[in-house]
Amino acid sequence: MTKQFHDNVLGGDILDQLYNEARTYNGWLDKEVSEEQIRHIYDLMKMAPTSANMQPGRFVWVTSEEGKAKLAECASEGNADKIKAAPVTVIIGYDIDFHEELPWLFPHTDAKSWFEGDEEGRKEGAFRNSALQGAYLILAARAVGLDCGPMSGYDADAVNDAFFGDDPKVKSNFICSLGYGDPSTIFERSPRPEFGKFNRMA
Amino acid sequence: MTKQFHDNVLGGDILDQLYNEARTYNGWLDKEVSEEQIRHIYDLMKMAPTSANMQPGRFVWVTSEEGKAKLAECASEGNADKIKAAPVTVIIGYDIDFHEELPWLFPHTDAKSWFEGDEEGRKEGAFRNSALQGAYLILAARAVGLDCGPMSGYDADAVNDAFFGDDPKVKSNFICSLGYGDPSTIFERSPRPEFGKFNRMA
Repeated sequence: MTKQFHDNVLGGDILDQLYNEARTYNGWLDKEVSEEQIRHIYDLMKMAPTSANMQPGRFVWVTSEEGKAKLAECASEGNADKIKAAPVTVIIGYDIDFHEELPWLFPHTDAKSWFEGDEEGRKEGAFRNSALQGAYLILAARAVGLDCGPMSGYDADAVNDAFFGDDPKVKSNFICSLGYGDPSTIFERSPRPEFGKFNRMA
Repeated sequence: MTKQFHDNVLGGDILDQLYNEARTYNGWLDKEVSEEQIRHIYDLMKMAPTSANMQPGRFVWVTSEEGKAKLAECASEGNADKIKAAPVTVIIGYDIDFHEELPWLFPHTDAKSWFEGDEEGRKEGAFRNSALQGAYLILAARAVGLDCGPMSGYDADAVNDAFFGDDPKVKSNFICSLGYGDPSTIFERSPRPEFGKFNRMA
């Protein structure tokens, strides 16, 4: 029986941890992130929905000095320093040929055939759904007591060559540093819109 | 002083509500979702990060019978029935000209100039970041005790004409029904990948 949580509004501290007090960090305390923590984040993220369970995200968790140096070379100067200082930076990539995996990921129908011969449609679906997965990852990291620093200021072609060169159907979407945020490295909170600015009822 | 939550791993019930036991619903109990709940979801979602605080998402919360009929006409047959039955379906749109708002959304530098004259780059940034916002929305809805049914099976051009026709720089990304999920309408959980399948350390 599926557990349901109807009208169970999570407490203020939990919403603070996930949304209201969580911040984008630009620097990190000198404290490691373990592979166990990384696996926990992935095991949460993978449960959240993607279209036809396509799970197009392909993730490279950069933790070694060599990996950081390689990734930093592809980034803008400011982001390169952040990558080198972070315990982990994950590359959120996507596989344009995700449909090859659908026979086992979505076994109750022939979903693979929906995408065959439609590379543009696959690219759009993989990009959208890997971005969703990246957001699930950010909130999962926060849910296990880590902080995030997502970035898109880098040379995507260089990252693709350096990390996905053996599989040209995989491209990077964005990258995200993870760790224990140094509170001295956050900027003042940017303004947030009132509901009426970007929302309407219909 | 920023609140931090280092190593505070949220409890199992909370992770169940957000990730592990939450499911995609195809049908809904006969129970309304209030505008107050919708505003709460938005007020959480908007706190989560977008690149340069661009906040490109534009949201139409379809709750009226007329709105549902109009949206259902743009959807595949199966999704049309789901839209008509759901208390709310939100259209997650994005504004390709989001950069016009950056002077107040990202006031400490001239971020607008980074995007001027680069419509392709704006389109990519708006699509990526509105997808992130859609994922933040899904988890925020779950955090306030609602269920979700995200969908991309619809005619995007028709939705753009019907709901964003007065502003051709706004396009739909995906749509998501919200409400109190009817547990009889979920499918068997699709398989999830082991860590090693789509992840590697570097």
